[in-house]
Amino acid sequence: MGVQIDRMNDDLIAVPRGLTNVAVTETAISDVRGLEGYYQYREHSATELARTRTLEEVSHLFLYGALPDRDALARFTQDLTAAQRGDDLAAVIDAVASAGTDVLSGAKAAWPLLAGRRRMRPLYDLTRDQRRADALALVAVLPLILTSLWQRGHGAGAAEPLPERGVVANYLHQLTGRVPTAAEERAITAYLVAVIDHGLNASTFTARVIASTAADVASALAGALGALSGPLHGGAPSRVLDALDQLSSPADVEAWIRGELAAGRRLMGFGHAIYRTRDPRSELLKEIAIGLGGDRVDLALHFEEQAEQALARSKPGRALHANVEFYAAVVLERVGVPRDMFTPTFALARTIGWAAHVLEQADDPKIIRPSARYVGPALASPATAPATAPR
Amino acid sequence: MGVQIDRMNDDLIAVPRGLTNVAVTETAISDVRGLEGYYQYREHSATELARTRTLEEVSHLFLYGALPDRDALARFTQDLTAAQRGDDLAAVIDAVASAGTDVLSGAKAAWPLLAGRRRMRPLYDLTRDQRRADALALVAVLPLILTSLWQRGHGAGAAEPLPERGVVANYLHQLTGRVPTAAEERAITAYLVAVIDHGLNASTFTARVIASTAADVASALAGALGALSGPLHGGAPSRVLDALDQLSSPADVEAWIRGELAAGRRLMGFGHAIYRTRDPRSELLKEIAIGLGGDRVDLALHFEEQAEQALARSKPGRALHANVEFYAAVVLERVGVPRDMFTPTFALARTIGWAAHVLEQADDPKIIRPSARYVGPALASPATAPATAPR
Repeated sequence: MGVQIDRMNDDLIAVPRGLTNVAVTETAISDVRGLEGYYQYREHSATELARTRTLEEVSHLFLYGALPDRDALARFTQDLTAAQRGDDLAAVIDAVASAGTDVLSGAKAAWPLLAGRRRMRPLYDLTRDQRRADALALVAVLPLILTSLWQRGHGAGAAEPLPERGVVANYLHQLTGRVPTAAEERAITAYLVAVIDHGLNASTFTARVIASTAADVASALAGALGALSGPLHGGAPSRVLDALDQLSSPADVEAWIRGELAAGRRLMGFGHAIYRTRDPRSELLKEIAIGLGGDRVDLALHFEEQAEQALARSKPGRALHANVEFYAAVVLERVGVPRDMFTPTFALARTIGWAAHVLEQADDPKIIRPSARYVGPALASPATAPATAPR
Repeated sequence: MGVQIDRMNDDLIAVPRGLTNVAVTETAISDVRGLEGYYQYREHSATELARTRTLEEVSHLFLYGALPDRDALARFTQDLTAAQRGDDLAAVIDAVASAGTDVLSGAKAAWPLLAGRRRMRPLYDLTRDQRRADALALVAVLPLILTSLWQRGHGAGAAEPLPERGVVANYLHQLTGRVPTAAEERAITAYLVAVIDHGLNASTFTARVIASTAADVASALAGALGALSGPLHGGAPSRVLDALDQLSSPADVEAWIRGELAAGRRLMGFGHAIYRTRDPRSELLKEIAIGLGGDRVDLALHFEEQAEQALARSKPGRALHANVEFYAAVVLERVGVPRDMFTPTFALARTIGWAAHVLEQADDPKIIRPSARYVGPALASPATAPATAPR
């Protein structure tokens, strides 16, 4: 029922399937340089941010367009903490938990319920500051929503907050019941920062399409979360571990991989749509895994080496390297994140990127409304087909 | 974290903003002929279906690809009815209602919660029949979700079901508390059938993008509902009535319209992105409004006439006619649908279209993943920018 007035004709523009390489918008948020093997968040190298910054600092970069100074960071951290209080949030989490679903399905429901309860308004009824306040509130509550639903699903109670620690340490604390070490916090911070954004993947694009209708921020984020829950996008990071689980020692790796490839199965965690070089995210996560150390990490390193050799032999023209999923799974497991929280944890990071894209899209008053080429049968009864230009 | 392997380079393809006229997919579901002023659902004229068929028959057309014969219709109707039973549905509605939101926000939450509870699986884990069963189940429950949430929000109880009547009559019965006349049922059936689908509008496109990630059907439908809730898409059909409310007699119309246009305001319910001729949907709904009759309808007819004359004078190059929203609002009001249920009622129809698009998209294994042209600052610290093709 769009109300925009555009001239439209029936000459359609053909583009590649899946919109591959089609520039559907301009953005100042991030850039993925697939050929060069790096990506940036605004003017910063993303992997450098992941190595050196907190999640709060980089969230500020996404929502405000710049890294915060000390005062701005203090205010921002306070805003995030304040957003997690409120009886209405507790009521929404109770309502969602009572439905008895998995964590991701519950999170898809929690955002619109909170928005409905708070009477969040359509984007075009809001100033930029109001839109950002809505986005910040929804980003801020997600860790609490995810950990609360996970705890209730597993009959676990909430851990005491760690008021002196940041979002990442508190998130880990709720999931593992342990106070995380600095190294663990650093590892998961690096993972989360590294996956906040990565071009117009299907979920980020979904957020922008929904935002282009001027719906409220929650609708855009919840829709994006729906897209991320699809295995072709969010993947199945824990399947990487399924492979490692089947291997009792490094000596078994080579034969196992050969068997998989001979059976025509795909190796989970290898190959990516964007990078023809190594994925800079998996390089970073590999570094972090090595830093954490342990037998499982050693097994993963050996697995990667064998897999790359085997893939180079079996598919010589294609550069198939470990993707972000492979070492992400290794790092998440090493720090004690439960496997059923791998995808929700990815979503926690990506939400920050979606929020920035929603805010950017909201500055563009044009709805995203493509066309489709009709390839079905012509009108069955010519009597009902009007002549061209009937009036 | 996509796992598809494609070659990708950095040469982006430029397309019009908002993807106007860009054929992002092929479809056999529907065709909108903007220049010719008609649209079709598969091989049938959509307005002819709206005039002559029940919602159940046309739903079958969308979900199964053909109008049903008598036996198929009986089975389909039984499936729809059966899908509305179940303790899990009642539990989900209770959970959502307890959060205290508006109807649309609640509906956005109810689908993922039901899917989570039923462990609905990703599209690519399902056969075509299983996908259709999921889609049918979610389409079938929406009227009950919408009317239940509306009743609870207004302190109203549920009306007794009318087992001899169809989906539309029962829906009206729940909202108005009255058993609808055949003419009322016919009018709303025509409205609903006429708006089931209309090309790749933002909500339908959202459903397809989410489906392309192989997420479950509920994620795709809930995301689409989020897009439809945006005022640039779902509109504000009740605003058409706000204008009529301000007019106590037909004699006031001309001056009122002149005042609005002189103040630079837009007339709600006029103009559409697609049709350069009259919108065939508003033609149909105008017919239906005339059939229902009454003072309010007479006022609306006079308003349309005056508005078109005034618009032709003030914007001579542009063909601005009443769009689907204008007479939809008049018809919905005339039959007693509450104003806060106009957009949910539109969603009820459009869901049938989304479901068909999700099923069609599920046959295409390619994820929809466009690109964006980066227009932000270059990397701030050249030391961190790797040389081209670092390895």
